[in-house]
Amino acid sequence: MRTSGFFELALAQRACRRFDPTAPVADDDLEQILAAAVHAPSAENTQPWCFVVVRDDGTRAELDTTWSSAWAMGADLLDPALDPALRRDLEDGLGRGGLATAPVVLVVGCDLDRVDEVHAASSIYPAVQNVLLGAAALGYGSCLTTGLTTFFVGQLRTLVGLPATVLPMALVYLGRPARPLGPSRRRPLAEVVHREQHGQPW
Amino acid sequence: MRTSGFFELALAQRACRRFDPTAPVADDDLEQILAAAVHAPSAENTQPWCFVVVRDDGTRAELDTTWSSAWAMGADLLDPALDPALRRDLEDGLGRGGLATAPVVLVVGCDLDRVDEVHAASSIYPAVQNVLLGAAALGYGSCLTTGLTTFFVGQLRTLVGLPATVLPMALVYLGRPARPLGPSRRRPLAEVVHREQHGQPW
Repeated sequence: MRTSGFFELALAQRACRRFDPTAPVADDDLEQILAAAVHAPSAENTQPWCFVVVRDDGTRAELDTTWSSAWAMGADLLDPALDPALRRDLEDGLGRGGLATAPVVLVVGCDLDRVDEVHAASSIYPAVQNVLLGAAALGYGSCLTTGLTTFFVGQLRTLVGLPATVLPMALVYLGRPARPLGPSRRRPLAEVVHREQHGQPW
Repeated sequence: MRTSGFFELALAQRACRRFDPTAPVADDDLEQILAAAVHAPSAENTQPWCFVVVRDDGTRAELDTTWSSAWAMGADLLDPALDPALRRDLEDGLGRGGLATAPVVLVVGCDLDRVDEVHAASSIYPAVQNVLLGAAALGYGSCLTTGLTTFFVGQLRTLVGLPATVLPMALVYLGRPARPLGPSRRRPLAEVVHREQHGQPW
């Protein structure tokens, strides 16, 4: 029962880019989600994560403005062969009707006083995945983005007051989905799983 | 019910470094675990992951030899203030009685033909976390390591035949735990969660 619960959750979890801005996200729910996050593994159990929970309208609006500029700058870099359905999904996240509708944005950082930068990613993204799954388990939608943490690190750092030793690594948008999430599109396992050696069929 | 299932699982999941080498890991179970893995998010849904399932005794022995050398080289770099209990846990993974007892090693790579390297980590480690949780949901123990994928990339690439475009990013050891896993040690949420701005208490 516990088993099928996890697999159902993992297979159904997918990015949400439009939220109901009026539906609250309770602090208690965030604490439950974050408790799951900090039980993810980290290099030598250094637990280098930090989470800034942003609800403030002004901060969220600035995040949105920065993200929309980032998207406009990056749009030329998108693969022209990108699946049109995916492009629509991504563009759904833009502007005030998209990710900006999420009542909560989690800024996830890595404290480089706790772990070498080379181990930062493997110590942070598992915790982020627990956030996404925990959110889904409570009926929230979520979206992991790394645009601002990749290309707008300085602005983001200033916006939420991250010290120089904290590397921002992800923004997670959280809230109740504005509409049902569709099914996800995935490559078949046969394409990505190999037996003993890369290239040998599973 | 589904809800409490996920949180119980996430809070109980922890690294296993000693396995029962005689307890089988069924292909069907691996497929269920890997199906969860590929439902994790990835940058622009590029799904750049690949998984080499290693069961071969010779390959696993070579992985073990390489890992033990890596540990010996890296031991000097460990923080002298490292929690002694954690040091014992880590050292438990060494040699033939440790990680080498895992009947399956998953080598997880990122296909750089599918995604820019800057987005590799955020596209791979969420899938790895789904592997760890999926394994736990089926009663397996698992351990995420990045030592060989950080410091012994060339050897690892040769050992499992990874093409130059595939970046190895994690090894996950999988099997039935040799003994019950103890409780995990975690920093309290109050230390790592901030409200609106870094440094403001939650």
